[in-house]
Amino acid sequence: MIEYYDVSGCYILRPWSYSIWESIKDFFDKEIKKMGIENTYFPLFVSEKALTKEKDHVEGFAPEVAWVTRSGDSQLEEPIAIRPTSETVMYPIFSKWIRGHRDLPLRINQWCNVVRWEFKHPTPFIRSREFLWQEGHTAFATKDEADVEVHQILELYRRVYEELLAVPVIKGVKSEVEKFAGGLYTTTVEAFIPATGRGVQGATSHCLGQNFAKMFEIFFEDENRERKMVWQNSWGLTTRTIGVMVMVHGDNKGLVLPPRVAPIQVVVIPVPFKGIDPSDECLKVTRQLQEAGFRVKDDLRDNYSPGWKYSHWELKGVPLRIEIGPRDIEKKQVRVVRRDLEDKTEGRSQDIPMADLAVKIGEILETMQKALLEKAREEHDSCIVVAENWDDFMTALNNKKMVLAPWCDEVEVEESVKARTKGEAGAAKTLCMPFEQDTLPMVSNTIAEGTKCFASGKPAKKWALWGRSY
Amino acid sequence: MIEYYDVSGCYILRPWSYSIWESIKDFFDKEIKKMGIENTYFPLFVSEKALTKEKDHVEGFAPEVAWVTRSGDSQLEEPIAIRPTSETVMYPIFSKWIRGHRDLPLRINQWCNVVRWEFKHPTPFIRSREFLWQEGHTAFATKDEADVEVHQILELYRRVYEELLAVPVIKGVKSEVEKFAGGLYTTTVEAFIPATGRGVQGATSHCLGQNFAKMFEIFFEDENRERKMVWQNSWGLTTRTIGVMVMVHGDNKGLVLPPRVAPIQVVVIPVPFKGIDPSDECLKVTRQLQEAGFRVKDDLRDNYSPGWKYSHWELKGVPLRIEIGPRDIEKKQVRVVRRDLEDKTEGRSQDIPMADLAVKIGEILETMQKALLEKAREEHDSCIVVAENWDDFMTALNNKKMVLAPWCDEVEVEESVKARTKGEAGAAKTLCMPFEQDTLPMVSNTIAEGTKCFASGKPAKKWALWGRSY
Repeated sequence: MIEYYDVSGCYILRPWSYSIWESIKDFFDKEIKKMGIENTYFPLFVSEKALTKEKDHVEGFAPEVAWVTRSGDSQLEEPIAIRPTSETVMYPIFSKWIRGHRDLPLRINQWCNVVRWEFKHPTPFIRSREFLWQEGHTAFATKDEADVEVHQILELYRRVYEELLAVPVIKGVKSEVEKFAGGLYTTTVEAFIPATGRGVQGATSHCLGQNFAKMFEIFFEDENRERKMVWQNSWGLTTRTIGVMVMVHGDNKGLVLPPRVAPIQVVVIPVPFKGIDPSDECLKVTRQLQEAGFRVKDDLRDNYSPGWKYSHWELKGVPLRIEIGPRDIEKKQVRVVRRDLEDKTEGRSQDIPMADLAVKIGEILETMQKALLEKAREEHDSCIVVAENWDDFMTALNNKKMVLAPWCDEVEVEESVKARTKGEAGAAKTLCMPFEQDTLPMVSNTIAEGTKCFASGKPAKKWALWGRSY
Repeated sequence: MIEYYDVSGCYILRPWSYSIWESIKDFFDKEIKKMGIENTYFPLFVSEKALTKEKDHVEGFAPEVAWVTRSGDSQLEEPIAIRPTSETVMYPIFSKWIRGHRDLPLRINQWCNVVRWEFKHPTPFIRSREFLWQEGHTAFATKDEADVEVHQILELYRRVYEELLAVPVIKGVKSEVEKFAGGLYTTTVEAFIPATGRGVQGATSHCLGQNFAKMFEIFFEDENRERKMVWQNSWGLTTRTIGVMVMVHGDNKGLVLPPRVAPIQVVVIPVPFKGIDPSDECLKVTRQLQEAGFRVKDDLRDNYSPGWKYSHWELKGVPLRIEIGPRDIEKKQVRVVRRDLEDKTEGRSQDIPMADLAVKIGEILETMQKALLEKAREEHDSCIVVAENWDDFMTALNNKKMVLAPWCDEVEVEESVKARTKGEAGAAKTLCMPFEQDTLPMVSNTIAEGTKCFASGKPAKKWALWGRSY
């Protein structure tokens, strides 16, 4: 999937992982285009003046900004920053482009790289100093329109995780501490890695309110010729998605790729026996499935045994393998083996008549896609623990769980929870305050009167989901 | 198309131009995937050690490299370069990935940004300090295979220019002075801007030979277990394409976009008369054409006159406009107006029966696509002048022509021509030595015995195309 590199915190996306990013891009790009959002490209570089214009925003990002100070052998007159995100790149231009109400909504997106020179331990896909993402930036005449879009985009992010990557997520809103620097509120899809007991922010959709509009002077004249400030959103989805998928589905044999994003969905492997080589039959089956629209590869290499090839493609996570031996040819069938089920589990391997192949493969892939999500969701949900007091909270946390706890929603209390849980495994923080949803062990995010905050003992305002996190 | 930016030499690609880039990407990406080339993503940053490994290469690029020396408030231990191109980023990894002959060919590509901090005058699209491109990097067991790919890719570049952008190009090979730094030979598609009398390098496909393989130790074991060095290519196409297209087709009314890449192919404009508003009919026609697969937009704004809208969409280069007035509705027809023909030219506007609309629009767009290329080719070819001596050469050059001249193919002579032609308009250089092709005023690139070099008087070896250039 990745290759290490000699600049610390940077990784190489090999074709195997990059093609998953391409699947995600294709899906998301089509969906936002349907919504009327257009793609653009803004520069990699930001002047110091623009970058430092919004105080909260620059405080949030300044420590991680990489600066170019030299070209060839010449010092630049002024150092130039590399974008950590593009609010400060785009919004000076928004103020030029937006004049009247007919220029609204302005809705653009770009697919690009950004750089955050983080000092936290870098982790492939999850935290790298350069990463790829899309960033959407939109401006509206009213807060209502902005609010609607925040949730439309969040729903697309949920679909990327659940429908494409088969990774369950919880939708919610970030706390004041965790929200986007300079924004009004941040919504998120939060994933969880059971193996490590850590939450991971899947993607965020921010309502920026009018804060940037004020700083960058983004005004418009409304229908009544009154000068008004726009309402803005920004939202982003990164290559981190791939890492989350890898960690959620991987097993002790290697990767497990959901069929919808797998670069190769089916690998066809000949199993020679008593001098009979089924390679021609494999070629035929491969062609037949490719024509039916599947992503298929045959592995006819003569310097590896079938067993070696099984392991090789299991390690790479290919959803299905088809084995063809002389007896299969006789019986006009192939053996199909699913990557996601353990050896000897029922349904892992089945003999499929050649005649039905394309239809059956389609069904099995669809079944597997669903099964992966279900299995992941079961595991995910078993990692949510409700705690109403500090001791239960700590027990759950140390058992590598997410903790759903009644909370007073005060910045100081979140900071104090962070301080009290600091340790080798890292501090706990709020992952989000979940929106009402029936997949959690509670049905509503309104809280019974008299409930106390698990940490401060003050009156609780919301259920918050806490955990250690990447 | 673009917007200026407060970091010098950087420009913003607005949706209107970015979507042309998307069309080019779609076409090229599909074609290289058919060839078995896979997409990847390598980091933006290069360590000094890797960047400076290949001497000729670093000499070619070092003066333009941007260096990151600081993150937040901390000095980096070692300055880190931003990629001007990715040979030095990728090839250390190639030497890890390539072990045996079964690992070859290795063929990858990436779509990304690169930075060249040039001191030449920046020009939107044509020369910017950051630009977008694809860069393909491939390794083969034999030079023959590498040679074949160089030309396959060059042919794709020709197709991008001629079939998509309707811009004629000349295929050829670069001189020693003009070839890629560190490579073996460089092939190119060269375009020409008649209005300014300047050539412009359209895209280049390089055979790198074994030079980088030696420096980065990219060896493989062949079928006979012998250790051999790979043969490499690299090739790139940039957002410059868009600028070339703009300059070749633009007229005094603004842009003219070839139908195949136009973000909007048809704009539908109601022409109200005596209180009758044809907007509903416009909506219907728009929907009908969209369903037929065309990119269509209606402009029903009530605060602008039809005439204002005509100019607006002509400025933006939309290939066709459809006008619908009450009389058109009565006659069950629409008026279709072509952007590429001058006012009152025959064929510029025609009445089309509603019943035939989708078919006819398809035909007219196809006709216009071809007509644009033909017109551009005619103008292009009229800018090629053959000169066999210095005086004719200078006359042609000063008449803003490309000059096809017999040449001795010596580095010193090219340098001396540059020196002798230096002036306000810039020095002349070789654009390429054209491959044999019948679109030039010569049919072969072998030269008659006894022919002298136009500049040095020495025996000529090749016909070379000279000109001032971007």
